[in-house]
Amino acid sequence: MKIQLQLALDMPNKKKAIKIANQTAKFIDIIEAGTPLIKEESLHIVKTFKKRFPKKKILADMKTMDVGALEAKLAFDAGADITTVCLSAPKETILSAINSAKKNKQVMLDTIGLNKKEILIKLKQLKKRPLYICLHRAIDEKLHKSITNLLACIKDIKRLTKNKVKIAVAGSINDKIARQIMALKEKPDIVIVGSAITKAKNPEIIARKIKEILK
Amino acid sequence: MKIQLQLALDMPNKKKAIKIANQTAKFIDIIEAGTPLIKEESLHIVKTFKKRFPKKKILADMKTMDVGALEAKLAFDAGADITTVCLSAPKETILSAINSAKKNKQVMLDTIGLNKKEILIKLKQLKKRPLYICLHRAIDEKLHKSITNLLACIKDIKRLTKNKVKIAVAGSINDKIARQIMALKEKPDIVIVGSAITKAKNPEIIARKIKEILK
Repeated sequence: MKIQLQLALDMPNKKKAIKIANQTAKFIDIIEAGTPLIKEESLHIVKTFKKRFPKKKILADMKTMDVGALEAKLAFDAGADITTVCLSAPKETILSAINSAKKNKQVMLDTIGLNKKEILIKLKQLKKRPLYICLHRAIDEKLHKSITNLLACIKDIKRLTKNKVKIAVAGSINDKIARQIMALKEKPDIVIVGSAITKAKNPEIIARKIKEILK
Repeated sequence: MKIQLQLALDMPNKKKAIKIANQTAKFIDIIEAGTPLIKEESLHIVKTFKKRFPKKKILADMKTMDVGALEAKLAFDAGADITTVCLSAPKETILSAINSAKKNKQVMLDTIGLNKKEILIKLKQLKKRPLYICLHRAIDEKLHKSITNLLACIKDIKRLTKNKVKIAVAGSINDKIARQIMALKEKPDIVIVGSAITKAKNPEIIARKIKEILK
């Protein structure tokens, strides 16, 4: 199984984000316009990414909490292939985003802020599930929370969803954690990397390194 | 007690938002740049509001879920007096946003997606609380969920926080619900109104009407 590499561009600076995307694109499967980047630069950044990288999947990390259909439409209209909705949002919001995703457009549910038990309860409550679920340790949590618990969720979610969803993992992932992931029996479908690449001296080298680990 | 009126400008259209803010400003205490508006137009909309309405409080409805300090800084730097963070975010995110709010800058916690029990548990877990808490029924929930349960939380939160927080309520509030609120024994400090004003034939008339009800 090939694991896809998603690059999270969270820095609230268009120029920097485009520069790093240019440097690393050949190793990246999904380019993510991060939440702070969207808020600071508007969804226009998604349009820019889609124009510059028409063959890549573009993800708008909207982290939608309300008006699911409206926010999904804004992201898709800007050119996003995937938009994110928080699993902690009301279920009406999640479902209205999923229902508004037309052909070739997808929703990714982001588990940020929820523990394993809450994630499973909320997923069970959903009458309809999206194609993607992102198990997410917040950047703010990285000093307090190990990623091991999160990785242990992969198995449970695959079972609950009968392997019908693709699972992404995010949360200060670097090459060391990428190796940990490759040692798992049940692996995610997508690994999301942000600062390990974007704050590296040479983003290209780290992107290539992680891409090779994921092969 | 005077209850403040906050106008939520959620439409993802700068021109429309500014037009309605102009029409209604004299009845409004807090002008809110809504989440979809920020994502579509960038935080520049907050800068525009602050410039045009320097005497009003400007709230950036960031609905932050991660990188609390960074997102709060972006909102405050744009001119926001208040920024919102979801109560369902990791507590590290909430605390880093609160700790980054300097003089005259405030955080509002948004309870969207949480039920009464969850709200109280999460508030108890916080070592430090912000000045504002917004009890929030999502726009997507309005057909499925009555606002009564939300209003019943006011009492519990005032007790839990020993009256040290200001409580806002939001969730498809119109003049009828504003009257319901005025009949409560324990009232909120802020009433947030969106579409009842922004989608009215004459936003000014409805804004004045609700402002008078809140007196």
